[in-house]
Amino acid sequence: MNNPIPTQTLPLKGRAYYLEDLAVGDSFVSRKYPLDANEIKNFARDFDPQPFHLDEAVAVSSFFGGLAASGWHTAAITMRLMVESVPMADGLIGAGVEISWPRPTRPGDVLHVESAIINIAPSKSKNDRGIVSLESITFNQHGEQVQKLVSKLLVFRRSSQ
Amino acid sequence: MNNPIPTQTLPLKGRAYYLEDLAVGDSFVSRKYPLDANEIKNFARDFDPQPFHLDEAVAVSSFFGGLAASGWHTAAITMRLMVESVPMADGLIGAGVEISWPRPTRPGDVLHVESAIINIAPSKSKNDRGIVSLESITFNQHGEQVQKLVSKLLVFRRSSQ
Repeated sequence: MNNPIPTQTLPLKGRAYYLEDLAVGDSFVSRKYPLDANEIKNFARDFDPQPFHLDEAVAVSSFFGGLAASGWHTAAITMRLMVESVPMADGLIGAGVEISWPRPTRPGDVLHVESAIINIAPSKSKNDRGIVSLESITFNQHGEQVQKLVSKLLVFRRSSQ
Repeated sequence: MNNPIPTQTLPLKGRAYYLEDLAVGDSFVSRKYPLDANEIKNFARDFDPQPFHLDEAVAVSSFFGGLAASGWHTAAITMRLMVESVPMADGLIGAGVEISWPRPTRPGDVLHVESAIINIAPSKSKNDRGIVSLESITFNQHGEQVQKLVSKLLVFRRSSQ
């Protein structure tokens, strides 16, 4: 990737929140992430090699009307930004997600993610954990939503340590 | 990526199926995709830099009990295999998806994807298209499910061309 992002291992235990620290409505905002055409094409070449993600000329006459990032690329960038901005002590462990892509991500877009806790469900069978539902909206530089993600995250209690 | 996969642009118009060609129950099986630890770490470094995706030693004492691929990596590989195996004439254009990860993907796993059409909903407002719901299960070499994906795909009629 040509995006100047930090790539060191994040310290798992240096992060902040356990299940008992969280409340519905808690929110988290990521840094901004600029995306260019090369990065879009590189991801597509590996994981989603369709012409509208690879070739500007072909993309113009496609459904997208121009080069667009794979939705899976938008999702992967969103995860990157969530790992940096949502400080769960044991990391972000997803059991499942729902995603929609209301509009394409384009070359030159600058993305950021705003996440909010929308539900907390302590496990009935295991006292040391719960499922936290987190809604994460990925915005472009125009304030338009390019992705809506709802994640069910496995979050542990401090007492589980 | 160090996985020897073809990376040429797939011919958008050379593919086969339009909306009127599809029926509930139609199914598609992908090729096999072997995954190694380096590829898991490279993806994680870019998009999901959490210790249990980057460092075998730390991963052993994590929830995963050993190095595990990011769920987003499993999802991206699944998309790669779907692009190759689900022959929609205008490509795979996803409006939204639901994903669950029943178990981790591990170094050395060999994945493949089995997809089946579970619903077809012609658009009420636009005659030239419909939403096809596709269930895609990603299996490892033991026949275990590592991901369940349901995609809502925008599929066009032949007459839209």
